[in-house]
Amino acid sequence: MAPFHCLTFLTDYGLEDAFVAVCHGVAAQIAPDLQITDITHLIPLGDIRRGAVVLAQAVPYFPSAVHVAVVDPGVGTGRRGVAVEAGSALFVGPDNGLLSVAVAAAGGAARAVSLTNRALWRDTTTATFHGRDIFIPVAARLAAGMPLDEAGDPVEVTSLIALPQPEYRVTGDGAHVEVVTVDGFGNVQLSMPGTDAPKAGLIPGTTVTLAWDGRKVTMPFVTTFGEVAPGAPLCYRDSGDWVAIAVAGGDAARRFGLRPGTRLTLTVT
Amino acid sequence: MAPFHCLTFLTDYGLEDAFVAVCHGVAAQIAPDLQITDITHLIPLGDIRRGAVVLAQAVPYFPSAVHVAVVDPGVGTGRRGVAVEAGSALFVGPDNGLLSVAVAAAGGAARAVSLTNRALWRDTTTATFHGRDIFIPVAARLAAGMPLDEAGDPVEVTSLIALPQPEYRVTGDGAHVEVVTVDGFGNVQLSMPGTDAPKAGLIPGTTVTLAWDGRKVTMPFVTTFGEVAPGAPLCYRDSGDWVAIAVAGGDAARRFGLRPGTRLTLTVT
Amino acid sequence: MAPFHCLTFLTDYGLEDAFVAVCHGVAAQIAPDLQITDITHLIPLGDIRRGAVVLAQAVPYFPSAVHVAVVDPGVGTGRRGVAVEAGSALFVGPDNGLLSVAVAAAGGAARAVSLTNRALWRDTTTATFHGRDIFIPVAARLAAGMPLDEAGDPVEVTSLIALPQPEYRVTGDGAHVEVVTVDGFGNVQLSMPGTDAPKAGLIPGTTVTLAWDGRKVTMPFVTTFGEVAPGAPLCYRDSGDWVAIAVAGGDAARRFGLRPGTRLTLTVT
Repeated sequence: MAPFHCLTFLTDYGLEDAFVAVCHGVAAQIAPDLQITDITHLIPLGDIRRGAVVLAQAVPYFPSAVHVAVVDPGVGTGRRGVAVEAGSALFVGPDNGLLSVAVAAAGGAARAVSLTNRALWRDTTTATFHGRDIFIPVAARLAAGMPLDEAGDPVEVTSLIALPQPEYRVTGDGAHVEVVTVDGFGNVQLSMPGTDAPKAGLIPGTTVTLAWDGRKVTMPFVTTFGEVAPGAPLCYRDSGDWVAIAVAGGDAARRFGLRPGTRLTLTVT
Repeated sequence: MAPFHCLTFLTDYGLEDAFVAVCHGVAAQIAPDLQITDITHLIPLGDIRRGAVVLAQAVPYFPSAVHVAVVDPGVGTGRRGVAVEAGSALFVGPDNGLLSVAVAAAGGAARAVSLTNRALWRDTTTATFHGRDIFIPVAARLAAGMPLDEAGDPVEVTSLIALPQPEYRVTGDGAHVEVVTVDGFGNVQLSMPGTDAPKAGLIPGTTVTLAWDGRKVTMPFVTTFGEVAPGAPLCYRDSGDWVAIAVAGGDAARRFGLRPGTRLTLTVT
Repeated sequence: MAPFHCLTFLTDYGLEDAFVAVCHGVAAQIAPDLQITDITHLIPLGDIRRGAVVLAQAVPYFPSAVHVAVVDPGVGTGRRGVAVEAGSALFVGPDNGLLSVAVAAAGGAARAVSLTNRALWRDTTTATFHGRDIFIPVAARLAAGMPLDEAGDPVEVTSLIALPQPEYRVTGDGAHVEVVTVDGFGNVQLSMPGTDAPKAGLIPGTTVTLAWDGRKVTMPFVTTFGEVAPGAPLCYRDSGDWVAIAVAGGDAARRFGLRPGTRLTLTVT
């Protein structure tokens, strides 16, 4: 039996074309019984940071899997393709930081290889579709039990590209934080782990003031959306246990003009 | 062998985030061989009635399955989570009416339990993501053969929340009806079963006049779209066998300003 | 063992309704272990040519499969439903040209039948949803091993409807071409096979001038997107190995007003 239960797949390929299905077909040719779970294919085109965050949100909930992620604006240029072992999972994709958040969350890279074994690639390899031509063929073989070191030359795990850590610092009466990501509903995830919320004074019943770019917004810190009126803002620990900002029945990111990278000062009273 | 062929899954989670995949991953940890079929995840956020109607449209075409549906604006508040047996299926989700249309169509609830057995939940349960933390873990175990009564305390089936029945009454020369739902193409499903259409005089070759809010529209009652010119309206028995309104190659809901809940007088000549 | 690894499914049904899931459910009732891979369900409503092109893009990457495609503006009128054998695949859908591009790419139709065996259809067959009522039930049985000739009466393969071939002719200093399709990112696929590009003088390092409708655009012919600046246009051999036009990080179709059917003169210098 293969050591991996399934292959997961995250890209910015969209759902209008055959790109995703083509990758499923290529995997099926190599490993007919392999189960593939699509994480999402609606990462905005080329948005490596968004892809990295969504991948990291999904991975902890899967059994041992090979996770393939392709958000790859540098496809066809010099960037490496890599396979990385972290915890009980393997990660396959471009070495552009896309895998780094999930790899770190899985305990950090234990081993990595550059995907240099061309015998595993599709016979014809294009300069624009490495998902189909390289990443999926290699990943399907890994999922079927091929040892990692057959995928290519070993590389130092310290040489893997990592995205910069979002800013986050607890202060006397709150914290300096950064917007990490915005989900499809406009909920805004901040860079503070939920487990650190009490350190910053964030406990249910307190009031939070967010300040950025000359703006200021105040809202209650609550446990769930139902505790505020429809249309009211709230601060809470989200389902991934990060401190987050939302608007009940609304879109907080649009309403407050918050985007990934926005830095905020959070004051608790 | 488990009594259920598969688990179906309907939500308002959208396709841009990892929410749906996370649920697939949680199910795979509990029941690795379980097949999951996504019905849709594009129910408008919090639109319980739309979710209920789409679920009811899908269920009759599946083999014995556990149907999980999560459109849950009251998540984290007092509303119950339930598992309901109806016909040869089980339904799992919030007790807010979402399951009620499909349950009724499956013959009505035979048994129901409140999901009070916390041993089946994920170890950490959040206030905002019961799909991942409660509904999917319980449903995956039910799909794998766990008896219903292990999921929690029995509840009276008469205590389950049901959505109000849409208005529908045959008159001397037609019917009073209500818009039940609008599909992704703008086709408008009314509250009259197709099997009752002849009682209201609706047979191919007749002409239908719809009146509502001071507006009046006339169209032929036909069997299929191809019988009218492109851009022309038509009344027909849709693929779920409900009387419906459409525009050939167009969007009837937008053109006529019809939405769920709109009441119409239908006159046949 | 069935001769087919899986069933693929392409439609214009959209993802907001239960239409696709209903078809999965119907297939599961007939062939419980059948694996279904969705190609896309976001073909624009009734756009047979777009459906035909996307189907043809996907099919070559699959193991032996039954490919079901439904873009069917003529549903319920006189058009035939057919099953066609080509190469090691079967194609099932309306006989309106939708299957023709993929069938030709698979080596042309070897045999075909009209889906006249009503015993294979669902008991109740509607005039608007032949995907659920006819195509999927027949295809699921074919995927499970039913011989093709049990699906209905044989028809001459020369009688199958085929879409017109897009215009394409190499000239002294370039080519006359046509836009075949536009993908979800606005990349514009032309009617010239990549393998013919050198015949037209298209080799990396050359410059391409496109002229149409009194407009003229010049761009380099390159191997991959990374060779031009963000926002710059490029001509290249795409991942399906067709000559194509793109804008790095942008939408070439929108920027240049190019759509399927637009005819261009391509001059190489």
